[in-house]
Amino acid sequence: MFEHDNDVVLSSRVRLARNIKDIPFPSIMKDSDAENVIDIVKKAVYSNEILSAQFIEYDMKNINPIERQSLVERHLISPDLAQNTKNGYALIKKDNTVSILINEEDHLRIQTIMKGLNIKEAWNVADKIDDLLEENINYAYNEKIGYLTSCPTNVGTGIRASVMVHLPALSITGQIGNILNSVVKIGIAVRGMYGEGTQSLGDIYQLSNQVTLGQREIEIIENLEGVVKQIINNERKARNDLFTIRRVQMEDRVGRAYGLISNARVLSTQEYMKLMSDVRLGAVLKIIDIDIKEIDELTTNIQPGNLQKILGKQIDPYERDIKRAEYVVQKIKG
Amino acid sequence: MFEHDNDVVLSSRVRLARNIKDIPFPSIMKDSDAENVIDIVKKAVYSNEILSAQFIEYDMKNINPIERQSLVERHLISPDLAQNTKNGYALIKKDNTVSILINEEDHLRIQTIMKGLNIKEAWNVADKIDDLLEENINYAYNEKIGYLTSCPTNVGTGIRASVMVHLPALSITGQIGNILNSVVKIGIAVRGMYGEGTQSLGDIYQLSNQVTLGQREIEIIENLEGVVKQIINNERKARNDLFTIRRVQMEDRVGRAYGLISNARVLSTQEYMKLMSDVRLGAVLKIIDIDIKEIDELTTNIQPGNLQKILGKQIDPYERDIKRAEYVVQKIKG
Repeated sequence: MFEHDNDVVLSSRVRLARNIKDIPFPSIMKDSDAENVIDIVKKAVYSNEILSAQFIEYDMKNINPIERQSLVERHLISPDLAQNTKNGYALIKKDNTVSILINEEDHLRIQTIMKGLNIKEAWNVADKIDDLLEENINYAYNEKIGYLTSCPTNVGTGIRASVMVHLPALSITGQIGNILNSVVKIGIAVRGMYGEGTQSLGDIYQLSNQVTLGQREIEIIENLEGVVKQIINNERKARNDLFTIRRVQMEDRVGRAYGLISNARVLSTQEYMKLMSDVRLGAVLKIIDIDIKEIDELTTNIQPGNLQKILGKQIDPYERDIKRAEYVVQKIKG
Repeated sequence: MFEHDNDVVLSSRVRLARNIKDIPFPSIMKDSDAENVIDIVKKAVYSNEILSAQFIEYDMKNINPIERQSLVERHLISPDLAQNTKNGYALIKKDNTVSILINEEDHLRIQTIMKGLNIKEAWNVADKIDDLLEENINYAYNEKIGYLTSCPTNVGTGIRASVMVHLPALSITGQIGNILNSVVKIGIAVRGMYGEGTQSLGDIYQLSNQVTLGQREIEIIENLEGVVKQIINNERKARNDLFTIRRVQMEDRVGRAYGLISNARVLSTQEYMKLMSDVRLGAVLKIIDIDIKEIDELTTNIQPGNLQKILGKQIDPYERDIKRAEYVVQKIKG
């Protein structure tokens, strides 16, 4: 019924951490090493028939802060890379499904991102690109432990798979705390929308594998997928219960959020996220007639960097809240 | 621009307290006296060519609680009369502009109510009916002090003129406290929507004369009217300032109130009143396109008694909040 379970899952991501043999890790390398890394990765991409025409280059020192922030908000680069305006570099596939981040915590990170629950496909694509790059890059690799990485938590497969889930009903019914605690106990990390150190906004959580060593990639993916499927079931059951037992209250809650989001004249990102959560739930439950894909697109577009990028200029926070409200009203009301 | 200043003034009322000579005041009279009072007043009305065909009778003991509550909410009878299910009686003009309340605190009270700032006209009508009744009723009257009444605060003219005003901008700008205090100091009583002992809801206040003795009726009326006109000017200035200086915030405030009131699924009277205040202000400022007369009609109709009367049945409070929301959405959205 829902495309790739997108009633609950916003997106799936896989990233592989890789380093180049005989070049020091980014934390201790010289600028000339960093330049060397960029050259090696670019050559590996451009010398490959399949990859060469697909990517756009983003040199962190040459793009403005709004553009960088926008890339972070669209999950195309990491916050860390955006801050590395000295040596940070990214090659991003034109359809925004693949990013090769250069000179982040590791020499390179291959990231794939797909809508809905799609980790296996994301993994397949990342794996393929990894193979194609490996034809021309000599990775730092140890037969016994696997890929060597800057941080020990990534050693081995170097894989981190993550899934962004929207869990409003588990939040309303108060089950969220217990469920996330249990998930952590079985080796799944729970984070906010922008990864480590960020808070959950709008009942959106990022679930990812903790372990990268001692398991095959496919096992890691399948383990995460299994847990996510369980959470999807929990969330759907909670939604169904709410809609059955507390229908009027749910309609009231959704109606009010919709009323505010479509009539406010000043709207912060934080308030948007809170209201969006109820509106998205209402859309899934068919209390209101809005396409959830449009809501998700809106949620991306109203983030501070993206909004400024869309408007084509830098705007101070208060003015931004006004423009955000204007943008949301226009998109939601048609 | 606004009919009878109805941007600020909801309604004007005048009531005259009268008692019949040689019958004890209601607080000490016997049931047979009360019946006698009803007979005398009815005879005075029906024997008069002008009055006889205009009134409908409401015997408090014969009408149900919802009907009584509805009459109170429409300001056609007082809460006190509604509670007197033994001897309370009312004759109400078919167009709802005149009520003759029998066996309330006084034997009879003649009340006229008109929309907007219209105290003089309300006084003229009340005065005329008073004269017509006096042709057939021997009022308790003293040459020196005037009409005798049950409570000393009404002695003399027996007149109470009151005006219902909506003061959202004075409330938002924080001036309301000072202004109402000053008004009290010059002999104007400030009360909530349903008179003595009731609180202000939705920034609606009732202003009335305190003094009934030692001044002619027209002086009392003109004094009150003068004060009200001053307050109208204050409120309009505050509205204009808000709209000029804090336009976006006002649009935001009004938009949010409109968004909630037109999308809620459960709505208490109290919350309605709060939201209505912003919506009405928005309608006056042309931020939203709603006729303020329709808002005022809605404000009357959603009161608990009126709502149950419209729906034709008794409903428990929670169900009423659902029906109220339904009714409001239907009226506001078209």
